[in-house]
Order: sequence, then C-alpha cells, then structure tokens
Amino acid sequence: MATVRLITEEEAQGKVKAIFADIKATKEIDFVPNVWQALAVNPDHLELAWTKLKAIMRPGRVDLLTKEIIALAVSITNGCEYCINSHTAAVLRLGLDHEALGEVVAVTELYNGMNRVADAYQIEPDVRPKVDDP
Amino acid sequence: MATVRLITEEEAQGKVKAIFADIKATKEIDFVPNVWQALAVNPDHLELAWTKLKAIMRPGRVDLLTKEIIALAVSITNGCEYCINSHTAAVLRLGLDHEALGEVVAVTELYNGMNRVADAYQIEPDVRPKVDDP
Amino acid sequence: MATVRLITEEEAQGKVKAIFADIKATKEIDFVPNVWQALAVNPDHLELAWTKLKAIMRPGRVDLLTKEIIALAVSITNGCEYCINSHTAAVLRLGLDHEALGEVVAVTELYNGMNRVADAYQIEPDVRPKVDDP
Amino acid sequence: MATVRLITEEEAQGKVKAIFADIKATKEIDFVPNVWQALAVNPDHLELAWTKLKAIMRPGRVDLLTKEIIALAVSITNGCEYCINSHTAAVLRLGLDHEALGEVVAVTELYNGMNRVADAYQIEPDVRPKVDDP
Amino acid sequence: MATVRLITEEEAQGKVKAIFADIKATKEIDFVPNVWQALAVNPDHLELAWTKLKAIMRPGRVDLLTKEIIALAVSITNGCEYCINSHTAAVLRLGLDHEALGEVVAVTELYNGMNRVADAYQIEPDVRPKVDDP
Amino acid sequence: MATVRLITEEEAQGKVKAIFADIKATKEIDFVPNVWQALAVNPDHLELAWTKLKAIMRPGRVDLLTKEIIALAVSITNGCEYCINSHTAAVLRLGLDHEALGEVVAVTELYNGMNRVADAYQIEPDVRPKVDDP
Repeated sequence: MATVRLITEEEAQGKVKAIFADIKATKEIDFVPNVWQALAVNPDHLELAWTKLKAIMRPGRVDLLTKEIIALAVSITNGCEYCINSHTAAVLRLGLDHEALGEVVAVTELYNGMNRVADAYQIEPDVRPKVDDP
Repeated sequence: MATVRLITEEEAQGKVKAIFADIKATKEIDFVPNVWQALAVNPDHLELAWTKLKAIMRPGRVDLLTKEIIALAVSITNGCEYCINSHTAAVLRLGLDHEALGEVVAVTELYNGMNRVADAYQIEPDVRPKVDDP
Repeated sequence: MATVRLITEEEAQGKVKAIFADIKATKEIDFVPNVWQALAVNPDHLELAWTKLKAIMRPGRVDLLTKEIIALAVSITNGCEYCINSHTAAVLRLGLDHEALGEVVAVTELYNGMNRVADAYQIEPDVRPKVDDP
Repeated sequence: MATVRLITEEEAQGKVKAIFADIKATKEIDFVPNVWQALAVNPDHLELAWTKLKAIMRPGRVDLLTKEIIALAVSITNGCEYCINSHTAAVLRLGLDHEALGEVVAVTELYNGMNRVADAYQIEPDVRPKVDDP
Repeated sequence: MATVRLITEEEAQGKVKAIFADIKATKEIDFVPNVWQALAVNPDHLELAWTKLKAIMRPGRVDLLTKEIIALAVSITNGCEYCINSHTAAVLRLGLDHEALGEVVAVTELYNGMNRVADAYQIEPDVRPKVDDP
Repeated sequence: MATVRLITEEEAQGKVKAIFADIKATKEIDFVPNVWQALAVNPDHLELAWTKLKAIMRPGRVDLLTKEIIALAVSITNGCEYCINSHTAAVLRLGLDHEALGEVVAVTELYNGMNRVADAYQIEPDVRPKVDDP
C-alpha cells in the first residue's frame, strides 16, 4: 500500500490535470501510472520530474527502445519491483520479444557478477577512453 | 594495486594461454584486460567466466552495442570504476559518440532517481506485462 | 512471512522482556516493532542492537527528526520496504507534513541520480574538506 | 581521470557560460565543481540537471543543511567518492562541526545495518503511515 | 506474479527436461525452483546458468555450507526476497540452527554498516594483502 | 585522503588509548587500522562500534574464518575498497589460500548475478524455511 494518497485522474486539477494529459499523450497509454499519481501530491515536484523525464526519454542519438532497455537494466540492478514491471511492459510494447528480453536479463546478470570480480581483486583500469572529442 | 598477482600473457600456459588468445581474437583487441589476468590465477574459474561471457556477449536478438550499453549502465549503477572505464571504451569503439554517451548517462541517472521515488512511496505495480508468449 | 519466529510481548521473558519495555518507553510507542521481535530469537544480538541504536538515536548535536530523515533516506536508497514504512511513520509522527516528506524524497531521488553522473564520468574530487578540527 | 573532457570556465560560452555563473552565485562558491564541467559537454543535459537541482536544493519546508545531510547520507550509502567529498565540504561549510558529522555517519552506518536485518528476516511492515493528509 | 511464464516440469522437454532432472538430483530436492523454471524460457541461457552454478557450488577448497552462507549474505545485502528465502532454507537444511543463522545475519548487518564508515571518511587502505602466492 | 583527521596511537588518550590497545590484542595485529583511528574523533562512537564488533566477531556457532568470509563477500558486494583490502588480508591470515579465495569470489560473483535474475522475472518464493525452531 502506498505511503501517500494517490491523486486520481478524476480529482486532478490545474497543472496536475495538464501534466496527466501530457503523460498519457506522450507515452501513448490510456492511464496515468501510479508513480505520477503519487508525485502529484506535490505539483511542483511532479512538474520537475515530468519535464526532465520527457526531455530525456525522447528519441535522440539513442533510440527509445534502447533507453527503455537501460531503464530496465538499472531497475533490475536496484531491485525496484514497480519499475521492473513498468519497464518490462514498455520494452515488450516497443517490440522486444521474450527471447530478446532474456538476453537483456542475461547481460544484466553477467555484469552484476563481473563488477564484483573487478572490485574483489581491486583491478586497475587497463583502458582509459580517450577524453578528446571522438 | 590488485589483491592477487596478475598472470601476464608471457607467462600464460596451456588452457590459460588458449583462453587469452581467444579473448583477444573475439574482442578484436591487442591486449588481455587485467580482469582476465586476475581470473587466470584459477584456470577453471577463468574458463567458466569466459565461456559464459563469450556466449552472452555475441550478437543475438539484441545487438552488441546495446549489450555494451547495458553493461555500462549496470557498472555505473554499481559504481565499479574498472568496469565503467572498460565499457565506456567499448561503446565508443563500437560507434557511440560523446553526445550519445551523454544520453546513456542521462537515462541511467534518471532511473536511479525514479527507482527511489517508486520505493519511497511504496507504489504498487500498475501494469503487469502479459506472461503469455508475445 | 518472516523467516524466523517472532517473539511476542506475551512470551518475552527476562532480558528480552526488559528490552521490549525499554523500546516502548524510549520510542514512546505502544507496541514492539516486528524487527525487535525477530531479533529476540537471539537475546544477546537483541541487546547489542538495541544498546547501539538507543545510544545513536538520542538527540545530540543532530536532532531526532533529522536523524529519522537520514534513516528514511538510507532506507529508500537501499529499497528496504519494512524500514521505509517504519521511518516514514516516524518522521510524520515527529512533525513532518506530506509536503516536507515530498522534499525529502526529492532530495533522495536527486542524489541517487547525481551520484551516478559523478561515477559515470569518473570525476575527480574538486573540494577536499579540511581535515583539521573546524 | 575523467572519461570526458571537462569544459573549463574559460572556454564556456553561451548557455553554458550563463549556467556556470548561476552555479557559482547560487552556491556561493568561487569555482565550478568538476561534475558540472563534465555535464557541460551536453549543454541541454547540463541545463536540465542544473534547473532541477536548483529547484530542489533551495530552502523549503526542509532547510538547506538538512538537505545537504540527506545528500551526504545517500552518497555514503552509494559509495560515491566525488559526492562524499563534495557534500562533506558542504555540511561543514553550512555549520556542522566534526562531532555532528560523526553523528550523521553513525546514523547512516546504523540503518545500512538495520535495513539488512529487516530484509534478512523478511519482516512484514508493522506500521503503515496514514495515507490521509496529516 | 512472475513477468515471464514459468516452464513446469510436466511440459519440459529435451535439454530443459534433462537440466531439470540434474537440478533435482544435484541439489537433492524434489522440485524445480521457480528461478530455473523462469530461465527455461530460453534453454541456452538455462544451460549456461546451470552449468556455471553447478561448477561453482560443488564442494572445493571451500565447503558447501560456507558457500551457501556467502550466497545468503550477498542476497541479504542486495535485498533479493526470492534469494533470501531460498538460501535461508538451504543453510538450515545443511545444518545451521537458528542461533547460528542469527550470527550470520549479525555479521552481515555489521559490515553493511562498517562499509559505510570506511566510505564516509574516505579511509585509505592500511593493509595490502601480499600479492605473491601464499 | 581521509575527510577527518586520524587519531594516531601516539596521541590517543584515556578511553581511546584503552580501546586501541584492546583492538590490537583482540585482533592479534601490531597496528591500529585506519578506520578505528578515524572513529576515534568521537570516542563514544568508537566505543559503541568496537564493543559491538568485538561481541559479534568472536567465534560462536559460526567460526571466525567464516565470519571474515561473510565480511569479505558483503564488502565486495558493496564495493568498499578499504574493507575489501582489510578482509582479504584477514582471510589470508586465517588460512585461506589464493585458490580458496578464488572460490569465495566466484560464489560472490554468481549470486550477485543470480539475485538479478530472480528480481528481473519477479519470481515468487518457492520455499519458505520453517519458522519453528529447528
């Protein structure tokens, strides 16, 4: 059970109502995800969070599916149940099938393991990416 | 300074020598990264780790660049210095430019933040991906 | 469902009974939180944990509300459901309203994100706090 | 060594130059911290990050020192070296002495431990904060 | 509810059926744990994961109970509910009683705390393990 | 560089001097590790931390080497450089050779990976350890 009262679409007003509409239009979904209903308790925080997310999650040099895959890998690494469910749904909606999802999970598993090998042995970097513009 | 003695290419023998050659050929690099030189202290563990990594990090339903991007996002989330350096170099070598790298970092930043909003308010999942095959 | 049997107030005896009473008196609550009922399986561990917590969570140079805010921010960062619930209740009991709670969550979100930017780019410290006594 | 080229104050132009000036004025410091010089590689990302941080880190229902203490506790929990240094400097500058800093560290230590006790025994929440407005 | 369809023992065929039998025989249990039923969606990933786990979790220089204790401590630190349940059951089955389990939890709690003290104060290593063979 | 001034053995007085002597005698080492020199800035926090650690890290139902192995696995999972160095030194001093250390690292790697598979697929617990005393 959420620790704050969710603001439903029905009761949303003013700035919150406008942001809710923008979320549905931008994400092409027909409901307002719970996390935004919770953030709506503080309309300014809702606006800050949505403005930033909308700017970052538009297709750019990196396409939207890849961005959702990153979001899923981060959420798995942090063990965030809500986020894992949400981003699994998103990557399937954007075209990944279950086998490809399995590959994303496998890579996420692999490097959560390998990160610890590198830390365990206190291994020094062997490759420094060049800091000049490519 | 590493907590175990690294096995250099010059002193590698037998199974270790063969795996070192396979690492360089598979990754198309001209050196053996330090993490593999550390794992070589235990040749069986080296073989298990390399066999798994080689199978997972080949292009499949998900391409290699996307897999390296996942590896980078996981490594940033875990704060593994060696791995961040290694996978930053890999994504640049595979064609990402600095602006695209900035988008990967921005998405990683965003969801490390949003994961905590969802956890903070103990938000219930609103979308369950279908469990049937897509 | 807990993986160990909780020791209820009714069955507590001796050292455990005394510590349970002290917990209720010190925290000014009328029940023994589940985590202490679980720790009671090993009375020595219960005593060590409670003695340390009681000493650290008394008002000092830092007031109690700020200490509970730290506890909440840490619990959110670690994604500990029990702890998030417990410390959210504590900060509200100590006077924070929902808008202020939203600010605590926003700061916690912000730096879980910013920490990854600093790690992603392997940024060197620019400011070293002076190590002399202030 | 950073994995991207830092943009120095001398070479900053246009939007970046204006944000750098705002950072120094807002934080009342006489240099631009390295993390902002790194973000400047992508001026839009710099602007998004600074706009959000500036809005969240102004005194509100929660004062600035408490917000910096939260930032420090989060950074310690995530083990982010750059951030720990930066926020330790900030809390000392805002008036915390070393003994009070020791209390912040002690509370952070305590709950990183207690979080694991609650997780280890899979303890169910015993208190649900009321979801109505307080 | 799992985000992928579990493959039950009844419907398992070919490689999956053989691995399921091997899991039950090797672990001396009479059911296939859910995590393997989920991995079975991708038979190749199932085989990679099981082959590696079987090789690492056999008694070697380190005995099996100690290896399961490590698995439990890691799972508690990461807050993985499924894994905590599974490895708690395993260590009890291998002979640990509840008091000894309490000691494992206490040590896990202690160092999740102490790790943050060392990070908080940015403490330099004072002891470097010798890198020569022991 | 540490963010607080370390208290050396030479300048330690009163309670701090006594605890430093007890640390060296209990751990059978001829120096005071840096983390205790840092904690000494606040003698009460030093005493609380040392009292708890001394009580938990004595041989009990679980032997000292296993406890140090747990400490190492936790420190690797959290990526704490100081702690990894310290506990690697401790397990080698207590008799583990490099091959056995490699097994500890391999198990730690394995479950940092497997934890994410279980989280990724939101797998429900299949085994509940009995909550009655064994």
